[in-house]
Amino acid sequence: MARRTGRRPGNPDTREAILAAAREAFAERGFDAASIRAIAAGAGVDPALVHHYFGTKDQLFLAAMNSPIDPQQLIPQVWAGDRDQLGERLVRVFLGIWDSPAGAAAVALLRSAVSNEWTARLMREFVLTQVLRQVVKAAGIEPEEARIRVPLVGSQLVGLAMVRYIIKIEPFASTPTEALVAAVGPTVQRYLTDELPGVFDHLA
Amino acid sequence: MARRTGRRPGNPDTREAILAAAREAFAERGFDAASIRAIAAGAGVDPALVHHYFGTKDQLFLAAMNSPIDPQQLIPQVWAGDRDQLGERLVRVFLGIWDSPAGAAAVALLRSAVSNEWTARLMREFVLTQVLRQVVKAAGIEPEEARIRVPLVGSQLVGLAMVRYIIKIEPFASTPTEALVAAVGPTVQRYLTDELPGVFDHLA
Repeated sequence: MARRTGRRPGNPDTREAILAAAREAFAERGFDAASIRAIAAGAGVDPALVHHYFGTKDQLFLAAMNSPIDPQQLIPQVWAGDRDQLGERLVRVFLGIWDSPAGAAAVALLRSAVSNEWTARLMREFVLTQVLRQVVKAAGIEPEEARIRVPLVGSQLVGLAMVRYIIKIEPFASTPTEALVAAVGPTVQRYLTDELPGVFDHLA
Repeated sequence: MARRTGRRPGNPDTREAILAAAREAFAERGFDAASIRAIAAGAGVDPALVHHYFGTKDQLFLAAMNSPIDPQQLIPQVWAGDRDQLGERLVRVFLGIWDSPAGAAAVALLRSAVSNEWTARLMREFVLTQVLRQVVKAAGIEPEEARIRVPLVGSQLVGLAMVRYIIKIEPFASTPTEALVAAVGPTVQRYLTDELPGVFDHLA
């Protein structure tokens, strides 16, 4: 077995084989149906090695999609505080990722999700299983409503990233973060916690 | 000179040469600085032929970026009616484009803008010169504020298209249009016409 060295132990070829098998399994079968056992078999390694290299299935998934962030680590930051400022905090944390060194990985991921159907599938699984479930758990939003509320929030945040970091429309792209928090925070707040008449009728 | 046949007259090679020269000129110099004369020279044709094939510079620009829509034709549809329902009408018209046969071209354009720096530049010019100017003119929004308000609207609409038509997160992707109009319309309305405290401070 490979020597453990910091956060990325193991033989690079083995690591890559596991990540490739994981991407295929998560994109094809979805997060829940993809098993560590099947991913290990796909990579030709022992399941214990997958856990040893990547930890939990959630952590393997984040590694497989080159996620610049771990939602489980960010969500406490967003939820700590006044419920009325949830939207503002979420926008602030989100823009903070793009403005940090992780921003380059976020741009690459978004580009790939747009041009590549497989990455789009992984992104979908990411939103549904990593973000949606965390949000439902943390915010106590009704799960049926969360299936519309979370993509609404996602639509505003993804679009913000597109216009600011990819299409780069000025002066919007260089507008101070706090001006955007003031503009977009209330939108996100409304999508998460307001009543939204007419939006859930078709779910009934 | 080529025979006029319907909306796309002329020699296909000449048309393509003009469009290629136009894309380069608009992306490199921007819409305002790119002249029909320079584009014609780049394509090795007479400026009169450019007008003959494509009409105005605005029309040439829309053709060069394969725009599925002409904002000048859509804006009257959005602005006709109660100013309080501007946001709802804009979301309805926007989703209507994506759900129409032009939707495929819109998906292609968005994909290209994300993966290709040149298309991103054209998209930027498109938003700034075709959409922004029309909106300022039609809605009487203060031009300095419009430079933030219009990209805010753009961020919500582009993100909506991403989540619904490209990443396709269900059940959001198959949510009835009117449910999304009810959800997103007020956001767009607020970005266009509400006061937005704290958003414009840095412009002063």
